[in-house]
Amino acid sequence: MKKIFSKDNRFIKLARQLNQRKQREKTGLFIAEGVRSLEDVLRSDYTLQAILINSVFKTKTEAKRLLSKVDKSVPLMEVEDSLFQELALTENTQGVMVIVRQKKHILETFLTSSPQFIVVADSVQDPGNLGTIIRTTAAAGASCLVVTKGSVDIYNPKVVRASMGGIFFLPVLSVENSGSFVELLKLNGYRIVVGDLEGQIMYYEADLKQPVALVIGNENSGPSQLFKKNADLIIKIPMLGDVESLNAGVAAGILIYDAVRQNFT
Amino acid sequence: MKKIFSKDNRFIKLARQLNQRKQREKTGLFIAEGVRSLEDVLRSDYTLQAILINSVFKTKTEAKRLLSKVDKSVPLMEVEDSLFQELALTENTQGVMVIVRQKKHILETFLTSSPQFIVVADSVQDPGNLGTIIRTTAAAGASCLVVTKGSVDIYNPKVVRASMGGIFFLPVLSVENSGSFVELLKLNGYRIVVGDLEGQIMYYEADLKQPVALVIGNENSGPSQLFKKNADLIIKIPMLGDVESLNAGVAAGILIYDAVRQNFT
Repeated sequence: MKKIFSKDNRFIKLARQLNQRKQREKTGLFIAEGVRSLEDVLRSDYTLQAILINSVFKTKTEAKRLLSKVDKSVPLMEVEDSLFQELALTENTQGVMVIVRQKKHILETFLTSSPQFIVVADSVQDPGNLGTIIRTTAAAGASCLVVTKGSVDIYNPKVVRASMGGIFFLPVLSVENSGSFVELLKLNGYRIVVGDLEGQIMYYEADLKQPVALVIGNENSGPSQLFKKNADLIIKIPMLGDVESLNAGVAAGILIYDAVRQNFT
Repeated sequence: MKKIFSKDNRFIKLARQLNQRKQREKTGLFIAEGVRSLEDVLRSDYTLQAILINSVFKTKTEAKRLLSKVDKSVPLMEVEDSLFQELALTENTQGVMVIVRQKKHILETFLTSSPQFIVVADSVQDPGNLGTIIRTTAAAGASCLVVTKGSVDIYNPKVVRASMGGIFFLPVLSVENSGSFVELLKLNGYRIVVGDLEGQIMYYEADLKQPVALVIGNENSGPSQLFKKNADLIIKIPMLGDVESLNAGVAAGILIYDAVRQNFT
């Protein structure tokens, strides 16, 4: 196995660049860290571009088992430990990092199939929140998550990490133009249900049966005017105690799982 | 206003010590940061022990408005800016920090009043998770949150911050002995409902009507044997996609709010 000692190695440079959105968009690649990520990518239909490991991971039984499943054509390199730690996003690195090709899903194919439940993240800006929403949407068995412009990049390393593998199994789509997305939703018979602190009706009294697009808004300013104007229903979560709001990921989870309850009971 | 320049000042020493659980327990005090914390403490029935501010906060209109509400007997001190930043828990400090007296609630008084909905955090170890659970439990209008031994300290600064004010308005009780707590619950007619990945029944099919104690377990190992053995019901959240689990705070939120739905509809 080739061992990398230099910061100027092209894979090291690439891994570092992939922390920037612009570079991720330019290359169509992203990075994910940890044993679980390698495992997930191998189980998923994502394409591995390269694997970087350190000396600690290399000696593990788990490493042998997992690496034996990797196609021989995928570059696999050991990175000198201190150099690896510099690249690592987590303090206690597990010593493995993968470079993966992004996937571009086509929105129309998701909307035009049989009636479905989809989730929309509208200008969600915190990577941890978007990652958590991906994780929850994946767990809920929704068809896909649509992320509007103005949200954090879906392939941001912190989003990928917080999604806990969700990014590899749930189709997550970025849309540039929310207006035409809304038109597509209507054209395909989706009801648009928007969560908002100022909602008209409690979420559990609302009809969340599919086909439905459940819209989760920005952490601070809530959903955008466009979605509110086009909403079939604006729903809220009751705030019964002396706090102003719920954590954004928790609020999303409550709404998403009430759709699960309504669609499966 | 007295201005502090020295690390050896007793309030600076105290604020620093309060990052340690042992010192919080010894003094019966804790710290909270930010404008919102000062506001919340003033609205709550917690007792302010001291206020530390920096030069930036001092000049704000908001500072004057809030500080005018503080009893004159509460020590109010300006801390030299770089010294304040050293104490601050957040990178972008708002320049205000409060030292507050802890509250000891008596469990029996909560359990013996009229039928209620209570939440139990059983060995929840991540401060962000416990804080989020406090926030959600407060929002859900539950009577109280009971935190078992083996959980992170409820007055840990990160718990306080993640609770977003919840800690000041929701009674949060620590119990030393889970066994006698379980006995008390039964004695007072509470059904014990435990959330677990291996639950017998979907949460939305379970009866979560009060009087009920909803038990949220440890992030990794789930609820303890004691609660599982004494459970009237073990409930689960359906995992319909290709992820293993939900974020602990999100899972707690889904269960807590289904109890809200069932108790208010």
